[in-house]
Amino acid sequence: MSLTSRERLYLYDTTLRDGQQTQGVQFSTPEKAAIARALDDLGVDYIEGGWPGANPTDSEFFETRPDLRATFTAFGMTKRAGRSAANDEVLAAVMNAGTPAVCLVGKTHDFHVTTALGITLEENLVNIRDSVAHLVAGGREALFDAEHFFDGYKANPDYALEALKAAHGAGARWVVLCDTNGGTLPAEVGRIVAEVIAAGIPGARLGIHCHDDTGNAVACSLAAVDAGVRQIQGTLNGLGERCGNANLTSLIPTLLLKEPYASRFETGVAREALAGLVKVSRQLDDILNRVPLRSAAYVGASAFAHKAGLHASAILKDPTTYEHVDPALVGNARVIPMSNQAGQSNLRARLAAAGIEVAPGDPRLARILDVVKAREDQGYAYDGAQASFELLARAELGLLPRFFEIKRYRVTVERRKNRYDQMVSVSEAVVVVKIGRDKVLSVSESTDETGTDRGPVNALAKALAKDLGPYQASIEDMQLVDFKVRITQGGTEAVTRVIIDSEDGSGRRWSTVGVSPNIVDASFSALLDAIQWKLIQDGAEPALG
Amino acid sequence: MSLTSRERLYLYDTTLRDGQQTQGVQFSTPEKAAIARALDDLGVDYIEGGWPGANPTDSEFFETRPDLRATFTAFGMTKRAGRSAANDEVLAAVMNAGTPAVCLVGKTHDFHVTTALGITLEENLVNIRDSVAHLVAGGREALFDAEHFFDGYKANPDYALEALKAAHGAGARWVVLCDTNGGTLPAEVGRIVAEVIAAGIPGARLGIHCHDDTGNAVACSLAAVDAGVRQIQGTLNGLGERCGNANLTSLIPTLLLKEPYASRFETGVAREALAGLVKVSRQLDDILNRVPLRSAAYVGASAFAHKAGLHASAILKDPTTYEHVDPALVGNARVIPMSNQAGQSNLRARLAAAGIEVAPGDPRLARILDVVKAREDQGYAYDGAQASFELLARAELGLLPRFFEIKRYRVTVERRKNRYDQMVSVSEAVVVVKIGRDKVLSVSESTDETGTDRGPVNALAKALAKDLGPYQASIEDMQLVDFKVRITQGGTEAVTRVIIDSEDGSGRRWSTVGVSPNIVDASFSALLDAIQWKLIQDGAEPALG
Repeated sequence: MSLTSRERLYLYDTTLRDGQQTQGVQFSTPEKAAIARALDDLGVDYIEGGWPGANPTDSEFFETRPDLRATFTAFGMTKRAGRSAANDEVLAAVMNAGTPAVCLVGKTHDFHVTTALGITLEENLVNIRDSVAHLVAGGREALFDAEHFFDGYKANPDYALEALKAAHGAGARWVVLCDTNGGTLPAEVGRIVAEVIAAGIPGARLGIHCHDDTGNAVACSLAAVDAGVRQIQGTLNGLGERCGNANLTSLIPTLLLKEPYASRFETGVAREALAGLVKVSRQLDDILNRVPLRSAAYVGASAFAHKAGLHASAILKDPTTYEHVDPALVGNARVIPMSNQAGQSNLRARLAAAGIEVAPGDPRLARILDVVKAREDQGYAYDGAQASFELLARAELGLLPRFFEIKRYRVTVERRKNRYDQMVSVSEAVVVVKIGRDKVLSVSESTDETGTDRGPVNALAKALAKDLGPYQASIEDMQLVDFKVRITQGGTEAVTRVIIDSEDGSGRRWSTVGVSPNIVDASFSALLDAIQWKLIQDGAEPALG
Repeated sequence: MSLTSRERLYLYDTTLRDGQQTQGVQFSTPEKAAIARALDDLGVDYIEGGWPGANPTDSEFFETRPDLRATFTAFGMTKRAGRSAANDEVLAAVMNAGTPAVCLVGKTHDFHVTTALGITLEENLVNIRDSVAHLVAGGREALFDAEHFFDGYKANPDYALEALKAAHGAGARWVVLCDTNGGTLPAEVGRIVAEVIAAGIPGARLGIHCHDDTGNAVACSLAAVDAGVRQIQGTLNGLGERCGNANLTSLIPTLLLKEPYASRFETGVAREALAGLVKVSRQLDDILNRVPLRSAAYVGASAFAHKAGLHASAILKDPTTYEHVDPALVGNARVIPMSNQAGQSNLRARLAAAGIEVAPGDPRLARILDVVKAREDQGYAYDGAQASFELLARAELGLLPRFFEIKRYRVTVERRKNRYDQMVSVSEAVVVVKIGRDKVLSVSESTDETGTDRGPVNALAKALAKDLGPYQASIEDMQLVDFKVRITQGGTEAVTRVIIDSEDGSGRRWSTVGVSPNIVDASFSALLDAIQWKLIQDGAEPALG
């Protein structure tokens, strides 16, 4: 089938609005901006930024007027009964955001109209019609989110359809069928969508919005497309209220790579952009400081991991034996036992990137892989800590210079009442370092210029950087720019992984990792790696031989 | 519909076999026994224990001959070409496990027969036929796992069907259609299953085995049932190779609670057992030391969490407004989290759930929301820390008992070489508490029974819990079950948020939050909240008035 004969299918992202309904998620304005940029690079068609007026962050984000290729969309609700659309201040706040498109949620389930809103069924239809007409008159692309549509249709199909028609007739570009409570199953979604289209609303004007309360949000979305809808709403990594929304990170590759969708539809996401999908998914997890879900479809770290021995050996003969798509198409990678040939060629490429050339088949390659595997079992993660990985490899290759040695350190955190009867805390660190023949003792405390105690890791970093003798000039322009902590095992056996991002005067950035059940010790290891890597880059002379 | 007229649908659990193919999962024999017991109490029909002979743990588990209500099943593969079924030692090991049922995997995709096995298509049919006949002759219930069936059927439908018929004709009780690579979509599964039945294998003899590589394993399983299969294979919490198997924890409630399944089918799982589903799901996570997935369908901690303000106020009027099923049916609970998107009705619901009734419009409600907002700006997050939220609200309402007062604490982390020239670390904490008129000093160190230093927070938790005088009995059964750290601002201004999950002897779990630039201090606050909340629940007498 040629490109031009394919139908257009539109992707509508609501990570910044419904995704923010996830328990524990609250984006800041810069985080919203970063996610919007990532979505725009991916190529989704609509980016819903939030509900202007509902909270200060959402309002602030709309004020930034992000420059996007996608249609930037504000979310709100249909006007209340007893006032005109023009006089509804909630609706006015949404309009004032000045976005090219506006999506308004409204009731389509008779029970909700009378119970939750406490208005008549006719008043609700007027609210829908007038609100949509108000958007259209204001020159906006209008979307109507038909809340509880599937439950409403099952209870009272005539009224639910009337509500859709009110929006459609008033000029809504899209009427979005929402399974708000997430309980509708795929077969039922398909059947009801077909009935809606038969009742006169064309599929080209219909969208679908599903939730994952039965684990079927992706399948329900596909069933709706099969039945004729042409807009899919969802979120990155399936964020969202309760069990989350339809996961766009799963849907997009299916739509682009698998039949019947790949031949039939065109979306705003290009094949090249699809190769950035894993990166986008990880970026969101980074912002949320979540551990990425290993088993996630397409993008999970285990999605192409072949643990079964029979599978792994067949994969070596032909990857299609146990892979439904090529992992590279979504920016993912095949994971096969560390000891084999493919593992070694990966490793050589990574070392070469760090300027370390090792011949194929060098036995030290297998040793490095063994150490990496053992460290990963302890909780290390080298994907995000290239500098620590280089140090590990150098150690195995005999290429690690010895600059200094930590003899001991001690950190004290103390909290007590001061003379004004206020609780105050202070941390103090002592570090003892051997450099050549010299033993250097340094002490620092954690109080910053504002008098705030910044804690034991801060005190330790300052003490460590206070006097490193001949290396002082090299570390003087270093600063810690980010500090991430993750508990890699739950419960009382908790092990802490600390990743530190450092930067120097030249703008160079590098990341190091430390792991320990003791969070202070994990941080200290990562700090040490950061300094050591910097000294190697600067070509510092090893004082310990 | 009466009970007797319902069709029987069989549930086949493969957590102990395919679930063990999950990256990072390796069950011990006692763990397998515990999971099998939990599955048996739940009421699944078949429990696949593993592959006897494939590895020592699996062999050992079968030797324990667990006493189960379910049909205990051994997994293996069809005999190799060039020997008889009776002379195949791999098959013999499976038979020797002595289980009432045996499931053998075999090829149905012509490409795999010739490429992976390197035998003729006819030899493969003989292997299937003879192996199944061997099981039947040995008095076993025979199951045939048709590997790569859907891909095989798409490539060569005639051969794939011949393979199924070989197993069926030889007496297999079940022919299980496996989507081994996980790439088949629900509509395709439904169509192909219908064609298989039309080709002469009755649905009452067919099973389905799906993987989640496109996020559709649950939907594919349902599509297969809709088309006529009567056995579903899956795993608890969707464990399994790559993205995992069909998640029985999602499927079982759908089959029991939702139409058309609830009226149409009967399974081995009783409604009363379903109320233990959350517990079974958590038990598996405990064994794997995994943090439970909050967004999991039905069983996730967020599955019935209503964050949106509009949702929360409607839920107060009628829970069916935003819940597709009653959470109690699966042993879950409704959660009305706090967030700055929530209004006063959300807040009142949250307080009511904690047993605190406040009249609508009470001015203290607005004050509580102001405090929550101010705290969230500092980095607090009350969504995941309801116990800390309750304490905050009680403080504003004048309902916070004063049990004890922390006068001061000090934690020391020390790392130095021991006499064997190894670096060792130890943390020590001193806590001074005033209880009534008494001042209590406690000291603890962080070394656990294995000699591992578990860090400053561990030392502090132990010192704090060492002697709380009249409250000691109440905190004795408390334990810290999870510890999460998030840096809420990057760089040198880093602020740390710590969330602690605690549990007591009654199985009650609660979460508390602490925030500070000093990670030790943030942890200490969260620990204090956890103890204080527990004392309130236990009705402890305030010693400080």
